[in-house]
Amino acid sequence: MAQNHLLLLPGDGIGTEIMAEVEKLIAHLKEKGLADFSFDTGLVGGSAYDAHGQAISEEDMDKALKADAVIFGAVGGPKWDDVPYEVRPEAGLLRLRKDLGLFANLRPAICYSALADASSLKKELVEGLDILIVRELTGGVYFGEPKEIIELGDGQKRGIDTQVYDTYEIDRIARVAFDLARTRDKRVHSSEKRNVMKSGVLWHEVVTDVHKDYADVQLDHILADNCAMQLVRNPKQFDVIVTDNLFGDILSDSAAMLTGSLGMLPSASLGAPDASTGKRKALYEPVHGSAPDIAGQSMANPIAMLASFAMALRYSFEMIELADKLEGAISSVLDEGLRTGDIMQEGCKKVSTAEMGEAIIAKI
Amino acid sequence: MAQNHLLLLPGDGIGTEIMAEVEKLIAHLKEKGLADFSFDTGLVGGSAYDAHGQAISEEDMDKALKADAVIFGAVGGPKWDDVPYEVRPEAGLLRLRKDLGLFANLRPAICYSALADASSLKKELVEGLDILIVRELTGGVYFGEPKEIIELGDGQKRGIDTQVYDTYEIDRIARVAFDLARTRDKRVHSSEKRNVMKSGVLWHEVVTDVHKDYADVQLDHILADNCAMQLVRNPKQFDVIVTDNLFGDILSDSAAMLTGSLGMLPSASLGAPDASTGKRKALYEPVHGSAPDIAGQSMANPIAMLASFAMALRYSFEMIELADKLEGAISSVLDEGLRTGDIMQEGCKKVSTAEMGEAIIAKI
Ligand SMILES: CC(C)[C@H](C(=O)O)[C@@H](O)C(=O)O
Ligand SMILES: CC(C)[C@H](C(=O)O)[C@@H](O)C(=O)O
Repeated sequence: MAQNHLLLLPGDGIGTEIMAEVEKLIAHLKEKGLADFSFDTGLVGGSAYDAHGQAISEEDMDKALKADAVIFGAVGGPKWDDVPYEVRPEAGLLRLRKDLGLFANLRPAICYSALADASSLKKELVEGLDILIVRELTGGVYFGEPKEIIELGDGQKRGIDTQVYDTYEIDRIARVAFDLARTRDKRVHSSEKRNVMKSGVLWHEVVTDVHKDYADVQLDHILADNCAMQLVRNPKQFDVIVTDNLFGDILSDSAAMLTGSLGMLPSASLGAPDASTGKRKALYEPVHGSAPDIAGQSMANPIAMLASFAMALRYSFEMIELADKLEGAISSVLDEGLRTGDIMQEGCKKVSTAEMGEAIIAKI
Repeated sequence: MAQNHLLLLPGDGIGTEIMAEVEKLIAHLKEKGLADFSFDTGLVGGSAYDAHGQAISEEDMDKALKADAVIFGAVGGPKWDDVPYEVRPEAGLLRLRKDLGLFANLRPAICYSALADASSLKKELVEGLDILIVRELTGGVYFGEPKEIIELGDGQKRGIDTQVYDTYEIDRIARVAFDLARTRDKRVHSSEKRNVMKSGVLWHEVVTDVHKDYADVQLDHILADNCAMQLVRNPKQFDVIVTDNLFGDILSDSAAMLTGSLGMLPSASLGAPDASTGKRKALYEPVHGSAPDIAGQSMANPIAMLASFAMALRYSFEMIELADKLEGAISSVLDEGLRTGDIMQEGCKKVSTAEMGEAIIAKI
């Protein structure tokens, strides 16, 4: 039992509604004898700020550190636009990533075939699309110091952020990308701006080096601006893309949007395997945000959240079969024509968050 | 005469071929008595490295500083992939931008109606698209110090880049964006990552401040990752986007590609008005690169280069009518069905670089 302990952090906005479907799924799995998860819940983001004046409390950080996996909803909303920088909603997520050492962010950009028409790209360019973006998540400009605003006098200020990467950080994320490529189409694109950034020069050098251990995987280097273009031009040319924290943020959002399946896309953030147990710390969250405009209306699409839970089954608990089953259930309710409002199409049936969640769960 | 002096820097790859069409245009304008330009030519990028061991010689830098405008082709190619970082082809372009103080990079992303089908986006999403990206070009992570790789021992290195923005740098680029918005649809989106970057916090603050002088222009703030998504989802929601050097690099390339007109898009890089003459230093270049794969085959599309020259007429020489005429000539040869290989479509006539250039020039 202890090995299957989760922390659920619904967060803000639609986070609560989509996490409710995860709780139903957990109960269902237990009832059917398919898997046994215990869980705690906690607060993060704006809701944690309202309760504790912090984007995540020390107590909840502690629970996160002890859990086998954290299941995360979404944070943020206009209500907290003006809270101090240090306690803004995103700070809770960034602290979780950093303190749990979740350096490897896996963001699949897949196009559900039932939704290929929903993409802004021409159907033939996205149908069957299956990219995996491997984003470095605990380094780069997100965490580098100095990171500050200084007063220069005369009404002038200076804003400073620092992009820093060490060899070992690039080495370990490259290995994650190459390892995952081996389970897929064995092709990796490494993306940076080595023509203007020294961290990009080092990135290119280290990835090239690590590649020597993966001769069976094809490696291509691509500048980040060109990568953004190629994603728009012909996304199917990519299999795995490995890139830094900031480029990964932008490129993965662009890739997610062009699948037409944004509300459906999950992500996993993984730490290094523990030296004695081999277990990785992990956090699973949908790619989409907290959607404050539709919060509380039972309209949110729970699929990305449930698909994130499927990634947890796969990466944290080695329940591969169950993960496949859950992903299959998602595809099949889509094929049957169930749609939440965000993905509604002619001839389909519009359902609520709970109806969608329950339809998926009923298939398992 | 002296006020109409140009420096032509063809650069590498297809740069020479497309610049030849500019020379023809200059001769034609003189012959017809429409405008009188004198010019020098120089080397930049790999070709400068081959000749002088530098990405641009001091002599050519001098000429650039003295010219009324620099017309720039493209730099780079696999031949120079392994030259030292300090003298790589891009260093020539970056030095021109920095030493000429070209802080304002104007990148129109327009969709030529004859080419709307060529976009990877659905036609209705891009037809009539007309965005102007205003990218800060002399600050941010491109030039901030420290920028270095340091040896940490034990086989570890550290790559460092620094993102720095001062109030005045953000203030002046915001004013360029608001001023240009006034000549268009009066809407500006300012894009940064203030949820993770202190330079983004300052950016947001300064742009909001400057906006007080432009109450007639609508200002929206948008996070850079969301901006990348919205560009893919529905690009027509944008009029002017103002953003920093690195985000501008990526977002403008993504926007350019989704117009379907990449080979057609020009750019202008402008300095501050001179205190006594009011003239701005300026460099004009196509958005596309040096395309080494098709160099020397008379296949390159000269339209982006000629459209960049049109921007020079408009922004450096106040020859608005002539700029309109040149842009009109480009549209009309496209409407007539002339196409270089990169934009070839069924039922159109495939032409060489020179044929395309000459057809455009003949209309003026
Ligand atoms: C919420 C924000 C801090 C975060 C990021 O920038 O990493 C988000 O955009 C993401 O991609 O997970
Ligand atoms: C060539 C390179 C240095 C340059 C940049 O990154 O600015 C290019 O990509 C551009 O956008 O003009």
